[in-house]
Amino acid sequence: MATKAKIGVLGASGYTGSDLVRLLLRHPRAEIVLLTADRRAGQEMREVFPQFSPYALPKLVSLDGLDWAAAGLDLAFCALPHATTQKVIKDLLAKAPGTKVVDLSADFRLRDTSAYAKWYGHEHHAPELQAEAVYGLVEVYRRDIKKARLVANPGCYTTCAQLPLVPLIKTKAIELDEIVIDAKSGMTGAGRSAKESMLFSEVSEGFNAYGVGHHRHMAELDQEFSLAAGREVIVTFTPHLVPMNRGILSTIYVRGRRGRTAADLHAILLKQYEKEPFVHILPFGETPHTRHVRGSNMTFIGVAKDRIEGRAILVSALDNLVKGASGQAVQNMNLVLGFPETMGLDQVALFP
Amino acid sequence: MATKAKIGVLGASGYTGSDLVRLLLRHPRAEIVLLTADRRAGQEMREVFPQFSPYALPKLVSLDGLDWAAAGLDLAFCALPHATTQKVIKDLLAKAPGTKVVDLSADFRLRDTSAYAKWYGHEHHAPELQAEAVYGLVEVYRRDIKKARLVANPGCYTTCAQLPLVPLIKTKAIELDEIVIDAKSGMTGAGRSAKESMLFSEVSEGFNAYGVGHHRHMAELDQEFSLAAGREVIVTFTPHLVPMNRGILSTIYVRGRRGRTAADLHAILLKQYEKEPFVHILPFGETPHTRHVRGSNMTFIGVAKDRIEGRAILVSALDNLVKGASGQAVQNMNLVLGFPETMGLDQVALFP
Amino acid sequence: MATKAKIGVLGASGYTGSDLVRLLLRHPRAEIVLLTADRRAGQEMREVFPQFSPYALPKLVSLDGLDWAAAGLDLAFCALPHATTQKVIKDLLAKAPGTKVVDLSADFRLRDTSAYAKWYGHEHHAPELQAEAVYGLVEVYRRDIKKARLVANPGCYTTCAQLPLVPLIKTKAIELDEIVIDAKSGMTGAGRSAKESMLFSEVSEGFNAYGVGHHRHMAELDQEFSLAAGREVIVTFTPHLVPMNRGILSTIYVRGRRGRTAADLHAILLKQYEKEPFVHILPFGETPHTRHVRGSNMTFIGVAKDRIEGRAILVSALDNLVKGASGQAVQNMNLVLGFPETMGLDQVALFP
Amino acid sequence: MATKAKIGVLGASGYTGSDLVRLLLRHPRAEIVLLTADRRAGQEMREVFPQFSPYALPKLVSLDGLDWAAAGLDLAFCALPHATTQKVIKDLLAKAPGTKVVDLSADFRLRDTSAYAKWYGHEHHAPELQAEAVYGLVEVYRRDIKKARLVANPGCYTTCAQLPLVPLIKTKAIELDEIVIDAKSGMTGAGRSAKESMLFSEVSEGFNAYGVGHHRHMAELDQEFSLAAGREVIVTFTPHLVPMNRGILSTIYVRGRRGRTAADLHAILLKQYEKEPFVHILPFGETPHTRHVRGSNMTFIGVAKDRIEGRAILVSALDNLVKGASGQAVQNMNLVLGFPETMGLDQVALFP
Repeated sequence: MATKAKIGVLGASGYTGSDLVRLLLRHPRAEIVLLTADRRAGQEMREVFPQFSPYALPKLVSLDGLDWAAAGLDLAFCALPHATTQKVIKDLLAKAPGTKVVDLSADFRLRDTSAYAKWYGHEHHAPELQAEAVYGLVEVYRRDIKKARLVANPGCYTTCAQLPLVPLIKTKAIELDEIVIDAKSGMTGAGRSAKESMLFSEVSEGFNAYGVGHHRHMAELDQEFSLAAGREVIVTFTPHLVPMNRGILSTIYVRGRRGRTAADLHAILLKQYEKEPFVHILPFGETPHTRHVRGSNMTFIGVAKDRIEGRAILVSALDNLVKGASGQAVQNMNLVLGFPETMGLDQVALFP
Repeated sequence: MATKAKIGVLGASGYTGSDLVRLLLRHPRAEIVLLTADRRAGQEMREVFPQFSPYALPKLVSLDGLDWAAAGLDLAFCALPHATTQKVIKDLLAKAPGTKVVDLSADFRLRDTSAYAKWYGHEHHAPELQAEAVYGLVEVYRRDIKKARLVANPGCYTTCAQLPLVPLIKTKAIELDEIVIDAKSGMTGAGRSAKESMLFSEVSEGFNAYGVGHHRHMAELDQEFSLAAGREVIVTFTPHLVPMNRGILSTIYVRGRRGRTAADLHAILLKQYEKEPFVHILPFGETPHTRHVRGSNMTFIGVAKDRIEGRAILVSALDNLVKGASGQAVQNMNLVLGFPETMGLDQVALFP
Repeated sequence: MATKAKIGVLGASGYTGSDLVRLLLRHPRAEIVLLTADRRAGQEMREVFPQFSPYALPKLVSLDGLDWAAAGLDLAFCALPHATTQKVIKDLLAKAPGTKVVDLSADFRLRDTSAYAKWYGHEHHAPELQAEAVYGLVEVYRRDIKKARLVANPGCYTTCAQLPLVPLIKTKAIELDEIVIDAKSGMTGAGRSAKESMLFSEVSEGFNAYGVGHHRHMAELDQEFSLAAGREVIVTFTPHLVPMNRGILSTIYVRGRRGRTAADLHAILLKQYEKEPFVHILPFGETPHTRHVRGSNMTFIGVAKDRIEGRAILVSALDNLVKGASGQAVQNMNLVLGFPETMGLDQVALFP
Repeated sequence: MATKAKIGVLGASGYTGSDLVRLLLRHPRAEIVLLTADRRAGQEMREVFPQFSPYALPKLVSLDGLDWAAAGLDLAFCALPHATTQKVIKDLLAKAPGTKVVDLSADFRLRDTSAYAKWYGHEHHAPELQAEAVYGLVEVYRRDIKKARLVANPGCYTTCAQLPLVPLIKTKAIELDEIVIDAKSGMTGAGRSAKESMLFSEVSEGFNAYGVGHHRHMAELDQEFSLAAGREVIVTFTPHLVPMNRGILSTIYVRGRRGRTAADLHAILLKQYEKEPFVHILPFGETPHTRHVRGSNMTFIGVAKDRIEGRAILVSALDNLVKGASGQAVQNMNLVLGFPETMGLDQVALFP
């Protein structure tokens, strides 16, 4: 049997951390050797996430004073809050330059450090690392990722919007100035911090938009759509919260260019994703449910005709913690460490 | 004490029927004297809806063979399925021409009987009554409703979209050919019939669009928006299902005309609804939650600036069973019978 | 029109506070003149609970430095956290001895201040007031409440257990040493404080027991059941959390004494509650759903035969925020201020 | 690579059917060669359960006229409704006597065919097969199952109650006549048939007991508890419905015999299940959540002291569709076909 890679999960007490552990526990080539969680340091993982009670896992430790060289990690997943990550990774790679990193925060997603400063309100703490970071949307940047040391795992909303839109933008199939993305997310997308607005009684039996007109994920969309188009593209994007745990569904309104119909757009996506293991295009006119991808690394995409001539409606769905975060991160790990891309990611969706 | 009006609820075993009973039980001028439910005829209301156990209510009877003249109703609410209603009301008004009717189905909402035939797949069964029917969106047609014998209570989705849009269309404040309505509804909007797709396990913990590109509520939107504009208006409309019982939230994307900004649109709505008891405009930039109108007859509307110059995002929220159905129906009853418009509709939203 | 009583709500930013406001806004004899919320002082109620946006309400103020004499309250509802209330009420009644108080915390529920000290871990701060406090379970202590200045509103779990059990204990109809109460509560019972364990993603799609073998509500049950029995009674009580907002359901296992059957127990309850406006006994063999009392002040109770000879199963359901807290508090206010007991409490349950 | 066993799933359009397919798709030694669903015959599995869209699966066929000999199944899972199964399996085993069967219905669970007739209201259709059927609670009957041709997979409620109770009954550690089982189940336990009472709007935001005093699962409990005790044991059992998809939690009230304390009971269970892969005993005093076993084949069991001397509270939790149905069925398949018992059952629980 092949040797296992030594894996660390930094920030194991949040939901992306726990979903990484869930996936890695069954990955045939991965061995979890380090789990960090500053506020829960000293505790067992089972005290933080009781579902892991039956499994042997390292005790949670603090990031402070960790000896990265001694840790000997083949790869570290970084599931820390936005804005704290740049310094941690800078330190890690300075001490252990051979360790690969897949970062699940937003800290290395923006190629332009001035865009980062604008959207996040402070200077980038590791601009020199930004230059080597590869944006980890596998279906677009697979080749670059294989050679990367530092992968910036994409955001959940942006993965859900990019997978249907990037191929249509690249093929100049749709008008660039009329794209409206109406996105809906389950609550795990908001993380595990204790906030009044995230209490069960504040969330269940209701629905609302938030961040209307201004949301940080826009910066990532702007960057990737503009790169795909070869010119600046700015879209309308409104996120909403659904009283469910997992899932993002994006309803995307577009107009075809030069007579392209909804069926043409469907054909482009079908061809583009024909061989992709984790993107599935539904038959024309069908649209996906988030429940049918829950717990899996799949993205389901549907295309339907609007009744207004020339317009189409795209609907994409994924599990925000899997393809939108930890699953895509493992997919990136597989590429970076030379494992088969789908290894450990074969869970079938859990429905109902 | 003033005498009470004799009220019948036709179709009392569905959710709009039960919400009518809930509201009427506390209405100081209404007395429920007739409840029909064909499949549950002979049963007590408490067997169909146990929450009514403590209340004295007439036994459920069948519509078949009802003697409308003898019933002596001042007003009948018709909460029957679409397409069965025209014949029932025709018969009722023939036998008891003095009875007023508020119809909660779609059967009398379309002024043009050929549009009805197109969208519903069969000829209109009472075209002569269609001529006298008044469309019951109170905030738009209050004056006509007061004189009406037959009121067509608007649909839930369409009420939620019309309240923010009609004033903006009438004042020519927005572009008419770029309106996108992304609507999300709780499950009671789908009624109480036993369908696999509506089971708890099929609905909870998930989110999906449906009727993409074609939904019957479009006909009603087309009619009212075109009337407001003075020319044909066709909008993009996509409904979604939220795993919650009550509530509709519509996220509406518009572009201002002739330099109108989002703030201008907000000002128009604020002025339009200043004195309306059941439409509340939130401060500029705030957007509503469905949970904050649950169980009440209120509509909350918010207006925010999009980051794209000239574009605005409107968000409106109501309880689909109250302002979207039974509450608006009681509001119509109040007008038709000469009661104060807000009578019996003062419930404060139940949150959490 | 009769003059309105001046009412204060201390602790208006929690769920029992907001439900008091919901009920009082429609109470014909109550006028809200004071709302306190220390951490939200200076804000409008609509910022804390947006459902109140359309209503005129006093701004939230801090308890610190309030001039109780100047406030001139006829009655204060105290919806503050347990253990902070004794001092507040002591101060209030010292400065404004004519103000009546209905306290929704546990601070005055235990007659025996040493029992209080044992269960709550600190000395009682107002033992002299404890002597005059009346336990506010209306169906048991109605006569005393009418004359009280300080009413200790019962707990939600304990109300739900006492209403079916107290009459059976008083009539010596059941064995006292075999009572098992398996209780299930919606999440609003846990309040509005931001705790990780109360986040939507920690609660939805799951079920669990908590406080197994030790829960503070036991002290209240011990007191009241022992008083009813005339000797010490200790019951087994296990609370659970249900992924829903409102509602408590208690499944209670008892054995009849001296040949009393389940039907006999049902008959006792039926007779006991025949004229009570807010306790409804279902037909023998039927058991209640929490959803059928949601938002109302009703308690539904069912009695069924166990298949084991001589044993019966009682099931009671109420809305923890209404009959289990704010509704019962308004019922107490009505008694204390001499209003009709049901005034302002006629809301029909909101189902679905 | 080892050859794969040819597997059929009879009744693939229900929830236990789909969970079997979910598990088998990833089982290294199983190949799904037959899927039946009478009402959906001719359709693709993806039309019935869209989550399977990306996978190649046989088309759904009708049971009628199936040639069992030609099918050449190594093993058939029977996930058909109760009472239809006996005839199907009788026919199958007559035509293909070498095929093994794991039946998920209740049809072969009762050893005594007269008990079957009493609880199910009709004669047993295959009494001769009943004689060879083995009751498939693996942790109790592992040895017999390995040699069986026909395994009766236990019910979900009964598995959840037996795993904590059988060892305590066998060791005579608890009083046999005072056992109370208060059980709570998610909605998938009620199946996928379209009934009004199972609609989302009837279930969400509420909680209720059902089948109080009489529920068919009692027959199975009676049989197994009596066998374990060596004399007749009848327990009190009340099932409830939780507004969640998956999970059963049983709160079990017992009294220790001859001075056995709660800690003693915990020690017995800890020892009994020390090496079991799918039963996990929590530290003394901790109790489980259903969410921490969701989607996995684990049962979590906790033991706590009641405050009443000599009494203990056991709480057990499992996923009703996995350890309570399809997962246990695959565990049985593994035993019957000689595969490692845990093969294909290593999914970690999906939380949140």
